[in-house]
Amino acid sequence: MSDVAIGIDVGGTKALALIVGRDGRVLGEIQSATPHDPCGVAGAATAEVLTAQVRGLADVHGLKVADVPLGIGLPGLMRRDGRLAYAPNLQSASGADLGALLGGALGSTLVFCENDANCAALCEHAWGAARGIDDFVMVTLGTGIGGGVVADGQLVRGRSGFAGEIGHMVVDAHGAACACGGFGCWERYASGGGLARLTSEAASTGRLATLVERLGGPDAVRPEDVTAAARDGLAEAETLVREMGWWLALGLANLAAILDCGHFVIGGGLSSASDLVLPYARECLVDLVEGYDARPTITVSGSMFGARSGAMGAALVALQRT
Amino acid sequence: MSDVAIGIDVGGTKALALIVGRDGRVLGEIQSATPHDPCGVAGAATAEVLTAQVRGLADVHGLKVADVPLGIGLPGLMRRDGRLAYAPNLQSASGADLGALLGGALGSTLVFCENDANCAALCEHAWGAARGIDDFVMVTLGTGIGGGVVADGQLVRGRSGFAGEIGHMVVDAHGAACACGGFGCWERYASGGGLARLTSEAASTGRLATLVERLGGPDAVRPEDVTAAARDGLAEAETLVREMGWWLALGLANLAAILDCGHFVIGGGLSSASDLVLPYARECLVDLVEGYDARPTITVSGSMFGARSGAMGAALVALQRT
Repeated sequence: MSDVAIGIDVGGTKALALIVGRDGRVLGEIQSATPHDPCGVAGAATAEVLTAQVRGLADVHGLKVADVPLGIGLPGLMRRDGRLAYAPNLQSASGADLGALLGGALGSTLVFCENDANCAALCEHAWGAARGIDDFVMVTLGTGIGGGVVADGQLVRGRSGFAGEIGHMVVDAHGAACACGGFGCWERYASGGGLARLTSEAASTGRLATLVERLGGPDAVRPEDVTAAARDGLAEAETLVREMGWWLALGLANLAAILDCGHFVIGGGLSSASDLVLPYARECLVDLVEGYDARPTITVSGSMFGARSGAMGAALVALQRT
Repeated sequence: MSDVAIGIDVGGTKALALIVGRDGRVLGEIQSATPHDPCGVAGAATAEVLTAQVRGLADVHGLKVADVPLGIGLPGLMRRDGRLAYAPNLQSASGADLGALLGGALGSTLVFCENDANCAALCEHAWGAARGIDDFVMVTLGTGIGGGVVADGQLVRGRSGFAGEIGHMVVDAHGAACACGGFGCWERYASGGGLARLTSEAASTGRLATLVERLGGPDAVRPEDVTAAARDGLAEAETLVREMGWWLALGLANLAAILDCGHFVIGGGLSSASDLVLPYARECLVDLVEGYDARPTITVSGSMFGARSGAMGAALVALQRT
């Protein structure tokens, strides 16, 4: 039984590799850009980058690559057999069996794949903001929204291992178009991409007049300008952040109705804006959750490990399976 | 260990009591109107009716009431301790501990309460349309929509036992008002109540011109007229039923995204219209489920026991706990 494992969180733009102890301590880190090579064999370019990360971390720590358990967190529909069945944000690896590719390259049988948000959920459950909580949902706000559902202490994987695609829950039946081909998906309102969309819409309809004037036009207003201005107390920016908080709460309320989860952990790339958005979301939950008063309080907290929870959780998966 | 149990499904309008064997066979049945006495002690009038049903069934079968395990399925938020915390359709029993009331009246320690849709899910899983299927959702279409979620073979109860309130998942953020205080809840579109609302809206906006003329005015058109006319091939009625099928599929697609359930069982009072609605719903799922082509086929079937599955499942709960 190895004392450490390597976990890699493969996102649409970067891959973060960590070496992690059984107690959750992070002992080393390598970050690389995720390659997007649409021409080669599916996943081959990605596997090459990840292989180099593993070799790099193993070298520094004096470990043999074949002996270190390796977990990989991937953004998309992960089959229970480890194959990435559908990955809109990582098209070049869609359909690939990255576990097999890395296992071959490293001469290792200790490679395990899991959905990235599921990894984050497992990490927060074991070491972070959901310790001791058996019914919660991990919500990762990035370009889209990912999710990991834990019910009665167990990760809900679903029939094929695809559970937790909470960002594609439709909350506005005739709403904004989504990359998945649908309309009104939650992630079009409450993610980083959602905030970008809300920002551009508000800027072009006169609802961000001060910022538009200050920055020189509606196209110049970025989501980070809105969050910065909201921090400075600009009312029009606060209103927009509040709106996003309402949308975030709407999806959380849906999940609470379906799953009766008493707790949410909010992570992902947008979690740096959590201190702004979460207070609004918590306020709105009171009105949006069915039978709110009949339930114990529903809590919403930020992720304890931020952008690291996916990779830490991937390492945890590898530790648990070896 | 008793060979039989009594299960009672307490709905907003009627209570169905069945005596059921361990093999799922129904040996006897009593149906009564559900009392609504807003003045007495919470649940007292209901408990009186249920007690009479139990005595009646036990008498006929020569059993002592204290020896027969009794399961009660209730419409609303059921705490894990058996108390009915919130029941919009059974206000007079809201807050009551019907298990304790019946246990006292019958001198029995073998009384168990569970949410009604959860009971139906357990019944279909053990004996019906979800046998051998470990990831599915039971959807009961009545006045509202109830749900029972089974993941990896286990009923998902959630923190307080309130899981499965799928009818209050918001699918149309600024949509129709709901009895729960919210807006755009799924049950306002895809339940019996939803069909009634869609019917009245369509009748008053000229979309059911033939039926309005035939029946003598927009107020005279009832949902059952629409389903009957759709069976006869009237195009305007088919369009409305198709619309409801789309809304039904929208909610199912959300559940498939969140839970990756590969199967849905549709039951409840509206299930008599299932042969009309389900084909449309199945068609629409193809477009509405994220990554549909990457998944194994998602199946949707009618309940095997129709209006009886709740009471049968309540009996099953009692059999499993004794």
